[in-house]
Amino acid sequence: MSEQTPSTGLQLRSLVTEEGQLKLLLKSAPVPEPGENDVVVRIEATPINPSDQATLIMPADVTTGETTGSGADTTYTASLRAGMEARVKPRIGKPLAIGNEGAGTVVKAGSSAAAQALLGKTVAVMDGALYCQYRKVNVMQCMTLNEGTSARDAASCFVNPLTALGFVETMRSEGFKAIIHTAAASNLGQMLNRICISDGIDLINIVRKQEQVDILKALGAKYICNSSDDSFMDDLTAAIEATGAYVAFDATGGGDLGSRILSCMERAALKDTELPGPYGSNTYKQLYIYGGLDMSPTIINRNFGFSWGVNAWLLTPFTQKVGMEKMLELRQRVANELQTTFASHYSDEISLTEALDKDIVAAYSQQATGRKFLINPSK
Amino acid sequence: MSEQTPSTGLQLRSLVTEEGQLKLLLKSAPVPEPGENDVVVRIEATPINPSDQATLIMPADVTTGETTGSGADTTYTASLRAGMEARVKPRIGKPLAIGNEGAGTVVKAGSSAAAQALLGKTVAVMDGALYCQYRKVNVMQCMTLNEGTSARDAASCFVNPLTALGFVETMRSEGFKAIIHTAAASNLGQMLNRICISDGIDLINIVRKQEQVDILKALGAKYICNSSDDSFMDDLTAAIEATGAYVAFDATGGGDLGSRILSCMERAALKDTELPGPYGSNTYKQLYIYGGLDMSPTIINRNFGFSWGVNAWLLTPFTQKVGMEKMLELRQRVANELQTTFASHYSDEISLTEALDKDIVAAYSQQATGRKFLINPSK
Repeated sequence: MSEQTPSTGLQLRSLVTEEGQLKLLLKSAPVPEPGENDVVVRIEATPINPSDQATLIMPADVTTGETTGSGADTTYTASLRAGMEARVKPRIGKPLAIGNEGAGTVVKAGSSAAAQALLGKTVAVMDGALYCQYRKVNVMQCMTLNEGTSARDAASCFVNPLTALGFVETMRSEGFKAIIHTAAASNLGQMLNRICISDGIDLINIVRKQEQVDILKALGAKYICNSSDDSFMDDLTAAIEATGAYVAFDATGGGDLGSRILSCMERAALKDTELPGPYGSNTYKQLYIYGGLDMSPTIINRNFGFSWGVNAWLLTPFTQKVGMEKMLELRQRVANELQTTFASHYSDEISLTEALDKDIVAAYSQQATGRKFLINPSK
Repeated sequence: MSEQTPSTGLQLRSLVTEEGQLKLLLKSAPVPEPGENDVVVRIEATPINPSDQATLIMPADVTTGETTGSGADTTYTASLRAGMEARVKPRIGKPLAIGNEGAGTVVKAGSSAAAQALLGKTVAVMDGALYCQYRKVNVMQCMTLNEGTSARDAASCFVNPLTALGFVETMRSEGFKAIIHTAAASNLGQMLNRICISDGIDLINIVRKQEQVDILKALGAKYICNSSDDSFMDDLTAAIEATGAYVAFDATGGGDLGSRILSCMERAALKDTELPGPYGSNTYKQLYIYGGLDMSPTIINRNFGFSWGVNAWLLTPFTQKVGMEKMLELRQRVANELQTTFASHYSDEISLTEALDKDIVAAYSQQATGRKFLINPSK
């Protein structure tokens, strides 16, 4: 290596205190030595995903946030949001590591051939503690990248790409033939749109603003329904009739959007039924909730017969269900199409210290603002 | 036959008119001739189940009900409930037959041996139009009964018994080991309680009144939780910890009872977890909604992790899924245990004409009153 690896590195931690505060702080720790099948990665790009926000900042009332100190002694402190006490109780006093995915350079490698082969390479990593400068991981957690792929390009190799591919696999394995997706202009939504175009799958994109309609139109999306339009229910029903999309993946979770989607599915399913029975159509309608952009309760109006399911969808159980072989196939596709299908875009690149700045915390703690943050711990 | 079969019989019909009224009326029709594999059954006992109420009376505002005429010319008329217009549109002008199950005497039989064998016998029938005096059905729709079983005993042979057995089969086939049931003091709930005691399955009975607790206690139920008690959530969590009941069958549908059940399941699942991750436990939690005693929206608070499903459960898809052989096995069990495990109780026995009386309609249109109506069309 051209640069000398230092003996210690900083790690970001999120701590809930007995006093009812959430603190973000930096901890200095020795750079670890790799075991036989391990490598040590200098993390250079790691995104802030909703799955990270949940542990990182969600319990905090960011309007009360203050930042003190500087450099490695920087500390962010905020009060807890009302009603969070019971939920955070198990984590009081435990400084939690965060960061589910990221990418960087392998600076140390264990003795095995697999580990040695990665030395000096840029790799993408799936883990749970990547908001740090140096992280030891097993070689199986690393995705090797094609020549010329930067850490920034590879920072979001796992969560969004595998989730989007997971939706398509779920659709196929459960016998559906088209997909409905909400919050469809997100990074994930844009990936799903590119996958579906490439694989010839009909995708109905649900968004809530005209500017999101425009983004998806420019990306070649065929079916876009704006939930703020008066004609939303009719538009969506017509799109379901045209595509046969009876499975939906919903990022919002709260409110009645999912219920309205199921109602439109039922209207489409009953289109040619002269006299529906009291239990509605036999067409099975599936809503998967995979996010919580809207934290309010899910409202299910049950005006869509008696053939339906509302289930949580999460990447980890999906990966366990489909098995190793399928996952390696999906990961290879991600590596091959990282600069096209699976390209991610970031509005802000910040350092570990900046991640503790009260204004920046306030910005990245908001989901669904259109801003997408990347941490570069080596900055 | 000792009595002569008349040439015509009465049939009850439910009609929604262009004028926005629901009418119940009696239609005189010829007693049909059986085909080779058919029998004609004189219906002597047919219950009013929630699945019948849906078509029979649910759209009507029974506070506006009036009854005119007498005998075969009796007519019941009520205004539609507010907001029902769209839902009933497909049935306007069509006098619908009702009655999913019942029992009576075979008075005519087709030429096949199977049909002839039933002549003069009391049989239970599953159909969709049994609120009538004479009904032609295929022999496959008939359950032959053991000696000494009356039509009244056999009136509810299908819907409740097969639903209760279906819950147990669903629990087994999906790998759960105990069951939670709401509205547990109902006829169906009492059957399920007897099945579970007999089969050695732990059942958590949820009710909402002390008198229902007492009913179930007298029937030997071990786990009973009263949702009106302040300690309900703690009681239910403790019962789930004791039994491992991670599948629930909910008759109410509306409100947040289902959500509270899922929360208690999660609390039980996390009992020994020191620090739960942001996505909660890996224990899969399943809520099946099989009724709509509460027609209001289902409120799902999503405070129970990301491993759960809320699905509609209905008898017909279940029977299709498990196949003919299993269904014949379940039907045989019902026939064998009709006066014990699958005994039904009725508060009121009424004639077809009485079923059109405005006070009686008002009484049987209410679900969950504790009253259970049986129609005897031969009365």
